[in-house]
Parts: sequence; structure tokens; C-alpha cells
Amino acid sequence: MSGETKTVIVGQSKPLLNYVTACITMFNSGADHVVLRSRGEAINMAVDVVQVLKKRFVSQVEISKIQIDGENVVSRDGRQLSLPVLEIELSMPKQNPA
Amino acid sequence: MSGETKTVIVGQSKPLLNYVTACITMFNSGADHVVLRSRGEAINMAVDVVQVLKKRFVSQVEISKIQIDGENVVSRDGRQLSLPVLEIELSMPKQNPA
Repeated sequence: MSGETKTVIVGQSKPLLNYVTACITMFNSGADHVVLRSRGEAINMAVDVVQVLKKRFVSQVEISKIQIDGENVVSRDGRQLSLPVLEIELSMPKQNPA
Repeated sequence: MSGETKTVIVGQSKPLLNYVTACITMFNSGADHVVLRSRGEAINMAVDVVQVLKKRFVSQVEISKIQIDGENVVSRDGRQLSLPVLEIELSMPKQNPA
């Protein structure tokens, strides 16, 4: 019971399963909560990661919180952009010792 | 006080502001809750709609619930696909009569 929260930042450059395995690794190393943080077009990917994780790997994982936010970013050509941010908090219920 | 819930299905074919105005119209016509439902790559757009709505149009709108789900769809070439679904419920706090 470490009560830790770890964050996975979901981008678009890596394949979906990389993020899924990152989540599994974090849960296995004792994290109670894993936050999937994604921005802009990667939001879509983050939701997909949760679905694959739940359906194919660990069905007992639960979505404990979802948050929508915005972030101001300055793009390469100097324009101000407002990017949507989605944070999904996953939690793993503790197995009761028999 | 009608207590109604209306749903806006967010796709990718129409411009962002169409969905924003659809939400505003629904709130103005008496809906208490508006659910933005989006699927697959349109999820990204739905989160963007919420941000634009909050920042530029009605700042008092609140996100009351966010839900992640999955849906099984058969694609045109006959394959089974699992699409992520994101539902964002917005609510407008009632103005107290002075």
C-alpha cells in the first residue's frame, strides 16, 4: 500500500500498446492510481488506451476520475493556441488477502 | 424548469462552432443537461467543443459527468472494431430569481 499516483503522458508518436504496458507496469510496481494525461489530438488515443487495457488486460481496473482542462500553448509560428487536455485517473482495487 | 436532458452527437464532418451553437441553443430552449456524445476520432473534437463553449460563450456552464465507454462496430470491410466513446454531460446552473 504505497498510495502513489503516477502519470503517463499519452502522445501520438508511439504505438497504443506502449501506453497500455506502461500502465500495467506502474500498477505492478505498486502504484494505486495511474493518471493518463493527454492533449489535443492524443486525447482520442488516451481513451483508446483505457478501453484496450480494460478489455484485454486487466478487467478489474476502474476509472476513478476524468477531468477536462485547457492549456495555452504557443505554436512554432508564434500563435497562441488553446489545447484541450483530458486526464483519466485509473485505479486498481486492492485484492483482499484471503 | 423542465429537467430535460438533450444529446448532441459530435462527429468530424461539421465545423466545431456548429456543435457549440447546438449546445447553446439547447440550453436556451430549456434543457438542464446537454450530453455531448462522441466516438473514435471525434472525441478530440468533443473536448474542444467544451473548452470553446466555456471560454468564449457561457462561462458558467459546468461539466457534471464524464463517461468513457466502448462500442463494437463492424467496418465496411467486415472487420469488428472496438471504438472508444466519450460522453460529456454539461449542466447550466439555474439563475436564482432576484
